[in-house]
Amino acid sequence: MVSPQEKPIGVFDSGIGGLSVLKQLVRFIPYERFIYLGDTARVPYGNRSVDIVKEYAKQCTEFLIEKNVKLIIVACNTVSSVALETVIETAGKIPVIGMIKPAAGAALRSTVNKKIGIIGTRATVSSNSYGKEIHSLANNEQVDVFSQACPLFVPLAEEGMIRHSSTKVIAEEYLSVLKEQNVDTLVLGCTHYPLLSQLFKEIMPEVNLIDPGEHSAVSALRLLAESGELVEEKDEFLIKPNIEFYVTDVPALFYEQAQNFLGFGIDEPIKITLE
Amino acid sequence: MVSPQEKPIGVFDSGIGGLSVLKQLVRFIPYERFIYLGDTARVPYGNRSVDIVKEYAKQCTEFLIEKNVKLIIVACNTVSSVALETVIETAGKIPVIGMIKPAAGAALRSTVNKKIGIIGTRATVSSNSYGKEIHSLANNEQVDVFSQACPLFVPLAEEGMIRHSSTKVIAEEYLSVLKEQNVDTLVLGCTHYPLLSQLFKEIMPEVNLIDPGEHSAVSALRLLAESGELVEEKDEFLIKPNIEFYVTDVPALFYEQAQNFLGFGIDEPIKITLE
Repeated sequence: MVSPQEKPIGVFDSGIGGLSVLKQLVRFIPYERFIYLGDTARVPYGNRSVDIVKEYAKQCTEFLIEKNVKLIIVACNTVSSVALETVIETAGKIPVIGMIKPAAGAALRSTVNKKIGIIGTRATVSSNSYGKEIHSLANNEQVDVFSQACPLFVPLAEEGMIRHSSTKVIAEEYLSVLKEQNVDTLVLGCTHYPLLSQLFKEIMPEVNLIDPGEHSAVSALRLLAESGELVEEKDEFLIKPNIEFYVTDVPALFYEQAQNFLGFGIDEPIKITLE
Repeated sequence: MVSPQEKPIGVFDSGIGGLSVLKQLVRFIPYERFIYLGDTARVPYGNRSVDIVKEYAKQCTEFLIEKNVKLIIVACNTVSSVALETVIETAGKIPVIGMIKPAAGAALRSTVNKKIGIIGTRATVSSNSYGKEIHSLANNEQVDVFSQACPLFVPLAEEGMIRHSSTKVIAEEYLSVLKEQNVDTLVLGCTHYPLLSQLFKEIMPEVNLIDPGEHSAVSALRLLAESGELVEEKDEFLIKPNIEFYVTDVPALFYEQAQNFLGFGIDEPIKITLE
């Protein structure tokens, strides 16, 4: 019988972008064991129908349940936006943390002028998931939410063109409306965007960036601590976080991109089939 | 009888720099009640003798004990470096979190090439507190720690010269040795330095910045959650964090500087005398 502390935390994403979320989890709860599932054979989810995203999300959740996880983190903003309920229903008693709510709360606590910007893929922006959550948490307070789809950031980040001059030109264009609206808080509503943080700060130096991965990691810490399922802190030098990687495909540039997202190299992933 | 959850968290610093630590606490455990004490009449502690710093630290701790705090955060890097034991002894059963250990652990988990840079005031750098803690946590692993005192950053930050060209010139000079040593992780060993984060990232774009305030906030979250003393998360829009401010003097520029450190304006502080 495995004790609750010994069970792993499951993290899934449509691809490898969710590694930026895993990076935050490792930063805040480094002593845990993680299982990361990237559905790299079917990435990106962003342009698919809601029904198919729900089906894929269900399959990912079932895979993690079989791994006996104590908590599921939905690292994918698209799944968090359109299929979180499906994950929660599938997960049963296993708690689920998505990207939207922790970031919406953080954005509300961050904003002073009550003007919040959201950037994300077209799917996330169209769903208005962040806007809805922010307005729901804000109760009757007036908060203005401005959203901007930034479809080129994912391919640019995956090509490693983080400091390329054309990425800056594109970012300036994408962010211009949010800048005009004078938002003081910007939610990075896609797993790839934390890689571009430095660029966003150059373009909007006064803005407070909200990384949903960071805030979902804090939610995970809080949830596990309160339920007594947190692994105890150890006074030792961690050579390497304890992570098992599962993917549905190993694409070209996989290891390079994983290194960019995580900040450290990863072991060979185990290739699986979801259905 | 006050329940453990209802008790405030006490934070003290030699001045207002500790507000950068309070900012992180508010970010990670926003539902708590905070008491902030800034010994603004006797700031800075950095150039004083160890004995006098210990005496001041004891007085600050006693003030917070009288306020019935459930946890004490030593926001001052100098006190954390040379007088943490005094605070712990004075605090008795009340847990104490300083800046050094959480940041040392985070730096070790962050570094890949095992080269860590520390910047701080002369007092903090001379004490080698970060170096000692890092080497102690690292056990027998080889880790190189390079320290650089940056005495001008505090006055420059307090003058609000965060984006001034001369601040950049000075920062380039201070950081040049650490850059030559190829550190991949930089600990911001003074409460004022997070204000200069953007500048540090421009000078050393590949480096991972460690903000001790952030990691002490995570330690606080973990500690309170594990002891059952954490205030429950609320689904509501927080207009304003719950903070009482105490100072030993209200210096010129106080409100402006407080806003810079915290990111939001503060109420009038209560002036007290420590002895």
